[in-house]
Amino acid sequence: MGSTVRVIQYGIGPIGAHIVRLIAAKKNVQIVGAIDIDPAKAGQDLARVVGLEEDTGVMVSPDAEEVLRTPADIVVHSTSSYLTDVREQLLRCLTTGHNVVSSCEELSYPLRKHPELSKELDEAAKRNNVTLHGTGVNPGFVMDKLALTLSSVCQRVERVSVRRIVDASKRRLPLQKKVGAGMSESEFRSQVGAGRIKHHGLPESAGLIADGMNIEVDEISETIEPVMASADVTTEYLRVKRGEVAGVRQICKGTMRGEEKLHLELQMYVGALDPADTIRIKGTPDLTLTIPGGTHGDLATVAAVVNAIPPVIQAQPGLKTVADIPVKFYEVF
Amino acid sequence: MGSTVRVIQYGIGPIGAHIVRLIAAKKNVQIVGAIDIDPAKAGQDLARVVGLEEDTGVMVSPDAEEVLRTPADIVVHSTSSYLTDVREQLLRCLTTGHNVVSSCEELSYPLRKHPELSKELDEAAKRNNVTLHGTGVNPGFVMDKLALTLSSVCQRVERVSVRRIVDASKRRLPLQKKVGAGMSESEFRSQVGAGRIKHHGLPESAGLIADGMNIEVDEISETIEPVMASADVTTEYLRVKRGEVAGVRQICKGTMRGEEKLHLELQMYVGALDPADTIRIKGTPDLTLTIPGGTHGDLATVAAVVNAIPPVIQAQPGLKTVADIPVKFYEVF
Repeated sequence: MGSTVRVIQYGIGPIGAHIVRLIAAKKNVQIVGAIDIDPAKAGQDLARVVGLEEDTGVMVSPDAEEVLRTPADIVVHSTSSYLTDVREQLLRCLTTGHNVVSSCEELSYPLRKHPELSKELDEAAKRNNVTLHGTGVNPGFVMDKLALTLSSVCQRVERVSVRRIVDASKRRLPLQKKVGAGMSESEFRSQVGAGRIKHHGLPESAGLIADGMNIEVDEISETIEPVMASADVTTEYLRVKRGEVAGVRQICKGTMRGEEKLHLELQMYVGALDPADTIRIKGTPDLTLTIPGGTHGDLATVAAVVNAIPPVIQAQPGLKTVADIPVKFYEVF
Repeated sequence: MGSTVRVIQYGIGPIGAHIVRLIAAKKNVQIVGAIDIDPAKAGQDLARVVGLEEDTGVMVSPDAEEVLRTPADIVVHSTSSYLTDVREQLLRCLTTGHNVVSSCEELSYPLRKHPELSKELDEAAKRNNVTLHGTGVNPGFVMDKLALTLSSVCQRVERVSVRRIVDASKRRLPLQKKVGAGMSESEFRSQVGAGRIKHHGLPESAGLIADGMNIEVDEISETIEPVMASADVTTEYLRVKRGEVAGVRQICKGTMRGEEKLHLELQMYVGALDPADTIRIKGTPDLTLTIPGGTHGDLATVAAVVNAIPPVIQAQPGLKTVADIPVKFYEVF
């Protein structure tokens, strides 16, 4: 894009910190502000908070209002999965004239679940001549952008299914715990009931595919079930015995008068033998696409967000989804 | 897009006719003009030329200048693989104020091979506030849009390879002949020398990937070799004996100081056992993507062109590549 892209990082959790490290490795980009409410991070140089060697001169601040007075080309936002939680944060970015790319799962396709809020955000973006966009690997890529892209060589689409199988053994301990590895079935179900075991984004992907490919569905529903370990599994961090919970199988279906039109399935469990992302389109022609091994969750989400920076800056104003934005890898912005 | 999209079809060969049939099956779209220089087609109703049951009321005309006086939202162009052959056709479409989507292989990424002509077309499009775009399955999708899309979840890209293996046994006789099936090796090589055995588009895809992913290459080179039949192969149309040519292996390499950075390989031969499209990105993370069975050439090219109609109409003016255009299936325009 020629001149230096100025970025404000909003939220410096594990994903936000990884985003900062990736941005720091790029040319033609400069981080000009950093926001996080964690008192342990406030006042520190961003480099120390994210684990970079050289100080950036940018101090992490809990005061979003002040940081957003800094002119910047885009805010990279990574604070929460829930759109209602981040509404005010996003509106403040937009009304201060900043483009936004966010890893907020519900922002990837908020039009069905939050129509009023989507309208409010879209209008705020347009009024301020900036773009708002949510992306990541899932939602964002595997069950959305990649499926849409594959459908571009279809003459007709009848039914779409996507299955993502992640071997949680190879992921961090928090993820292994988050999917319920090592729990009893009853404990798993009570954690699901309490909303603590849940991946966010499947209904968003379903809505995006349905609306994006003009597949009529009158219901989008979701189930969360345990995957039971069929043999003992030992990971770097924990041990799951045969008969205990190995992880989660979350299925989101889009149906039309009871007939299944969309089937999105996410399996994340320790000891998964064939991790892969697989998209099937039933149509003309029938198409199957597979990424053996699957797309790495954290690496890919961070990449998707950072690679969205140039096209989001160039996009037309408003709330834009991955259906609207052409995507690719950027070495230089 | 709401109101009816008006289309002029420019070129009614096998691909053009297939495009017309697909468009005729869509809602919210109307063909308002048809151009072809073939005297056998001129003056006939378009429906008869392409094999539709109901007459369209649109007569095929060899007079492009006259047909292009018709107001339309887009011209769908399918006449030749060579950009220099279609320069005047495209300029006429643009200067009469028409958006254009074309299956011309060299138009998919003309910036490296035809920089001056690219500039001329880009300027003509911008001057007339319209968009010009070339696409298809290959070039356009397998070695370009799909590879770019996959790279959007990469933090770093070092090397890209794409291999497309097509089982020519299942394709039409002209294609089986076009790949040299049944020839002796010396006949094959003389046909290659005469430029008659050659798939168009690999250097275009290589240029698009190199420029699109900022992979520096100082040379893009192409080789065309025969695939020899290792056993007798009988197709619906012809018989190839062991030791005869079964088809073609075309390889396009992008190198930097002799080091291979891009490897694009197209194998089209009768009796191919494992037809598939496979993309490998070496980077962070390493990624492999496979479409087992491969993407059907004709079906997919027609779909890609027709599905490009809505985003090309909505795009900013100028010469745009698949890197610029978000793609997906459209049931309704």
